Amino acid sequence: MVKVGVIGANGYGGVELLRLLKQHPLVSVEKVISHSTQGCKLTEQYPHLNDVFEMTLEKIDIEEIASNVDLLFFATPSGVSKEIIPPFLERKVKCIDLSGDFRLKDGLLYEKWYKNTQAKNELLQNATYGLTELFRSEIKNGHLIANPGCYPTATILGVYPALKAKWIDQKSIIIDGKSGISGAGRNASIGNIFAEINENMKAYKIGLHQHIPEIEQLLNVISGEEARISFTTHLVPMTRGIMCTIYGDLKVTISTQKMIDLYKETYKDEYFVRIRSANEWPATKEVTGSNFCDIGLRVDERTNRLVIVSVIDNLVKGAAGQAIQNMNVINAWHEKTGLANVPLYP
Amino acid sequence: MVKVGVIGANGYGGVELLRLLKQHPLVSVEKVISHSTQGCKLTEQYPHLNDVFEMTLEKIDIEEIASNVDLLFFATPSGVSKEIIPPFLERKVKCIDLSGDFRLKDGLLYEKWYKNTQAKNELLQNATYGLTELFRSEIKNGHLIANPGCYPTATILGVYPALKAKWIDQKSIIIDGKSGISGAGRNASIGNIFAEINENMKAYKIGLHQHIPEIEQLLNVISGEEARISFTTHLVPMTRGIMCTIYGDLKVTISTQKMIDLYKETYKDEYFVRIRSANEWPATKEVTGSNFCDIGLRVDERTNRLVIVSVIDNLVKGAAGQAIQNMNVINAWHEKTGLANVPLYP
Amino acid sequence: MVKVGVIGANGYGGVELLRLLKQHPLVSVEKVISHSTQGCKLTEQYPHLNDVFEMTLEKIDIEEIASNVDLLFFATPSGVSKEIIPPFLERKVKCIDLSGDFRLKDGLLYEKWYKNTQAKNELLQNATYGLTELFRSEIKNGHLIANPGCYPTATILGVYPALKAKWIDQKSIIIDGKSGISGAGRNASIGNIFAEINENMKAYKIGLHQHIPEIEQLLNVISGEEARISFTTHLVPMTRGIMCTIYGDLKVTISTQKMIDLYKETYKDEYFVRIRSANEWPATKEVTGSNFCDIGLRVDERTNRLVIVSVIDNLVKGAAGQAIQNMNVINAWHEKTGLANVPLYP
Amino acid sequence: MVKVGVIGANGYGGVELLRLLKQHPLVSVEKVISHSTQGCKLTEQYPHLNDVFEMTLEKIDIEEIASNVDLLFFATPSGVSKEIIPPFLERKVKCIDLSGDFRLKDGLLYEKWYKNTQAKNELLQNATYGLTELFRSEIKNGHLIANPGCYPTATILGVYPALKAKWIDQKSIIIDGKSGISGAGRNASIGNIFAEINENMKAYKIGLHQHIPEIEQLLNVISGEEARISFTTHLVPMTRGIMCTIYGDLKVTISTQKMIDLYKETYKDEYFVRIRSANEWPATKEVTGSNFCDIGLRVDERTNRLVIVSVIDNLVKGAAGQAIQNMNVINAWHEKTGLANVPLYP
Repeated sequence: MVKVGVIGANGYGGVELLRLLKQHPLVSVEKVISHSTQGCKLTEQYPHLNDVFEMTLEKIDIEEIASNVDLLFFATPSGVSKEIIPPFLERKVKCIDLSGDFRLKDGLLYEKWYKNTQAKNELLQNATYGLTELFRSEIKNGHLIANPGCYPTATILGVYPALKAKWIDQKSIIIDGKSGISGAGRNASIGNIFAEINENMKAYKIGLHQHIPEIEQLLNVISGEEARISFTTHLVPMTRGIMCTIYGDLKVTISTQKMIDLYKETYKDEYFVRIRSANEWPATKEVTGSNFCDIGLRVDERTNRLVIVSVIDNLVKGAAGQAIQNMNVINAWHEKTGLANVPLYP
Repeated sequence: MVKVGVIGANGYGGVELLRLLKQHPLVSVEKVISHSTQGCKLTEQYPHLNDVFEMTLEKIDIEEIASNVDLLFFATPSGVSKEIIPPFLERKVKCIDLSGDFRLKDGLLYEKWYKNTQAKNELLQNATYGLTELFRSEIKNGHLIANPGCYPTATILGVYPALKAKWIDQKSIIIDGKSGISGAGRNASIGNIFAEINENMKAYKIGLHQHIPEIEQLLNVISGEEARISFTTHLVPMTRGIMCTIYGDLKVTISTQKMIDLYKETYKDEYFVRIRSANEWPATKEVTGSNFCDIGLRVDERTNRLVIVSVIDNLVKGAAGQAIQNMNVINAWHEKTGLANVPLYP
Repeated sequence: MVKVGVIGANGYGGVELLRLLKQHPLVSVEKVISHSTQGCKLTEQYPHLNDVFEMTLEKIDIEEIASNVDLLFFATPSGVSKEIIPPFLERKVKCIDLSGDFRLKDGLLYEKWYKNTQAKNELLQNATYGLTELFRSEIKNGHLIANPGCYPTATILGVYPALKAKWIDQKSIIIDGKSGISGAGRNASIGNIFAEINENMKAYKIGLHQHIPEIEQLLNVISGEEARISFTTHLVPMTRGIMCTIYGDLKVTISTQKMIDLYKETYKDEYFVRIRSANEWPATKEVTGSNFCDIGLRVDERTNRLVIVSVIDNLVKGAAGQAIQNMNVINAWHEKTGLANVPLYP
Repeated sequence: MVKVGVIGANGYGGVELLRLLKQHPLVSVEKVISHSTQGCKLTEQYPHLNDVFEMTLEKIDIEEIASNVDLLFFATPSGVSKEIIPPFLERKVKCIDLSGDFRLKDGLLYEKWYKNTQAKNELLQNATYGLTELFRSEIKNGHLIANPGCYPTATILGVYPALKAKWIDQKSIIIDGKSGISGAGRNASIGNIFAEINENMKAYKIGLHQHIPEIEQLLNVISGEEARISFTTHLVPMTRGIMCTIYGDLKVTISTQKMIDLYKETYKDEYFVRIRSANEWPATKEVTGSNFCDIGLRVDERTNRLVIVSVIDNLVKGAAGQAIQNMNVINAWHEKTGLANVPLYP
């Protein structure tokens, strides 16, 4: 059994890690850590864990933790993991970071979009971006995995085949993102409360979202050109789920079916990416609780544009699930290990 | 008192008309008509109308109706009003049609997108498109008003000032539409039931929606060029509300504030259109139950695109409310008459 | 025009008062006051009020307020109005208090259930309990109205006819209450956020809710006996609406229809109370946004119990609407004035 | 591997069986059967099953099915399984019926409450009622298991310890039930659609629900007395989850803590029943997707009543999960096999 710990175990990302780790046959959770609620039992915060996880949240004690775990998940707010990860790496603990601290290779971009000082450059350069389907071979040997953001995961899996094939024009890409509220975390603010969110849809952070440079960095890598995207974000009155509707100008004349064929071929060995048939569109509920990314496609001949709809569960493929998928890769386990659960429907 | 009737009074559009007409001081509802549930009391279908509207749904009897009303609202499914409106017009009853039957001047487009035979061409040409803010003077003298669709209302009010000023490139316009489920009407289908919609978001009819030619017809009028838009539609787990997020390439270099100024100037005499300040975005709940259209704007200098977010209550400004606004124009009443209610928040 | 003010105007109760006062033809809102957000414009807190209420929230300045209004609504948290109402009463300003500070005649009960010191006893005894349908004549001459709680309003209107007729046994009364989340106010707490409330139902404060002594006080008055009720409260994932399901042992042998007849007779002159037919049950949405209280009844012959289902909109008949109804009584206006709006459905 | 089949696989109960069977290590699903959609692929009805269950729905062919499976689940509507189960039993296929056809020992009660002819009496008497925690030893040797209803499961687990101990008076028991909408199945009806259910709560079938005789039959067995309960049912705007709030007059003087101790002792070996501490109440979301039944308790000294709050996921412990738990018992497997998943939260 590989021994793991979760730092930031009292947030939604942390609790989702625990749910999935519980069903993983090859790991044991040895440590659950929370700065803000240390000393509390997990079940005080989350009664649904009664009789399931009767552990007590501990404080961050580097020696104590490092001597008890092989791998650590960081489900911490922005700005935390860049401070506390280095000593764990020195002690040969593998680290999978669910925050944005190590995702951007260009530290200045981090400072601009996250309004915070960047991590040490050496670490930034050594961190491996954990979009499993694209960077599996690098992840295999990674010690510090920067687990992707939720929107970037849905977006990049959605555009990758068409962009790689140079069938769409990178400069034309527009991403209209919609997210459930759990992406905002378990934080009390007036904008988060039920009466404000229910029966409501609102746009937020348009043009200012910190996932913009992350997506552009990836598009640069895929296309070999400098990217500049329009990316908008909207809150939808649901708890889980992200949908990205993506628009791109076609550089070739092609049918919807040929486009679908390209996607199916590209992802033919990827269990977690499912491509829909023509005129069928994925719904967020069809991936709830699972690590799937479902993608629908249409070539609109009237406008010569490609429309892509990509959905994930933001807490699974967009966070905890992909983190576990990466742990599986690192340990050379089958990628589905602990992640084979069927979406909860309805 | 002007005497009015509602045909199709047992659908959501019809019931919303009744709600708003009840608070209108200058009209009396003389007839409520339903083909499918004639002979039933309204309150059997809608117990919330107990003691408010104790009328019985009647069948369509042209002479009987025409001799009792001055103006008729048609909240009927596609394909109905084109058949039953002509005799009412002959009898000098003014008609406001909430369906799509008379919106497209080109009958062939109707046939293509609605899969139905078109209305008589003479009527199509005489019908007045009822987007009040843009066509007030024509509506004033109209006898047959084609009340706009919900998505077109939000979209056109959203793009009009920038397009009219030629500040954006019409060919670049992309509209990402999101709608609550009431737009699908009070129809029982598996895709409509709560367990399928709740905690779910799905795309539908992408590139195939019948509002595409309606929007393009309007864009043609505004810009004087032939339009060809990308328009996608998504279902959001809420009952009321439409949000259109609209993207357009800028033809000029301009700041967000200057763009906002243009919109405020354009709509300065329009009570029902409200423009937000920079970095503030409208939410659908902020217009619930009201006839407002709220618009937020951002010029994204990184991509040289304009992003517009436009929201309405699909049953009010997107249907019944705008119909009443048009009735007010026809009768030379103040446009706010019967429409001054404050949004229901929260 | 009667000049009114709202103290606590930045909470949900306050904003609902503003919505309804706007449609009231005989009053003008002269002052909106908020201790916590004084100096802000209402529209900063509530963008749905743009162009509708462009007032600035003021601080509590007794002389300034008293010289500008005839009547004040207090939509303040527990414990506030008992401190600030006395000087307004001295200055002949009529006060309608939506909090619980003046509802209990026995100040010790207030201290026990509200964990706070009681109001001055003289004021407690002079305050008029504002359940309009039952205490209209007292309210007419009242200077300080203690507007009822939301659960008590639904409960008392639900049991009154059967209890008054001595057809049910008071000691047997059990009230199972269910409420939407807006009753918890616009307060940020983890228990309130969307991700915790959506797709969830939870019980809270069972046997400990501060509405228990309020309901018992009323039952005492109606029956002339000392009451002792079981009262449970549950949160339902919706914004507005309260449903109380009430059980009582029958003291007489009676049919459901006779029971319904009794209720219809009792409330025959009450516009805001609607009694359903046998085997028809009210739904909370059927009263949304309106001042109605809808009641369904069943005599269960198998168990010899009466089951009553009573629904209101907690922010209207359960708070702001009833407050305005009381203002209408005080001013000898028709009770429906400003309250005739149709429920928002769907 | 035990070979199983699911009849009625295209409803919510059937699909939930498939979700849970997929994660069960000791069974293989050999047959998925649907009368109404035979010949369709499961994924046409349920795209979330793409790449997970690529089976085709088959028609009911008794020989074909019986020769391929060891055990059959019936997730069929009322009235179906009583007709089709007998030939399977003759062919030694074990049958677990999720419908109500075999739950009532008194066939006349079935006829009265289900408005349908009863099953053959011999089968009724041989059927084993599958409330696992109470009837484990009988289930072990059962060939035909009548899987309990959702409300009865939550209710009986909730009242059993107190009633068995004779601490509450059976005649006083009142059950106020609240259910999510998935209990109504995947059926299109106007009462089921999102716009009618969302932001709404309604009572239904009060005093008429077919689970009344099922609960009473069980209470008779537990207490040895004839039971007669008040049972009301309400629809809550959520997809999954049932909460029963249960009231009973105490026959003994006892503290809340002693009551909790009794429950903890009674269920100390039951993994799936969790008892909360004093003043803590379970929420439906805390069991979502899991087979748990969570129970909270309060002795109200003011009224001398016990209040019990019992929650389950209606599709898991209230249907598919308990059916699998029973399959585990029949096969002498650990009861948690395939059912150890953590609730999905949030």
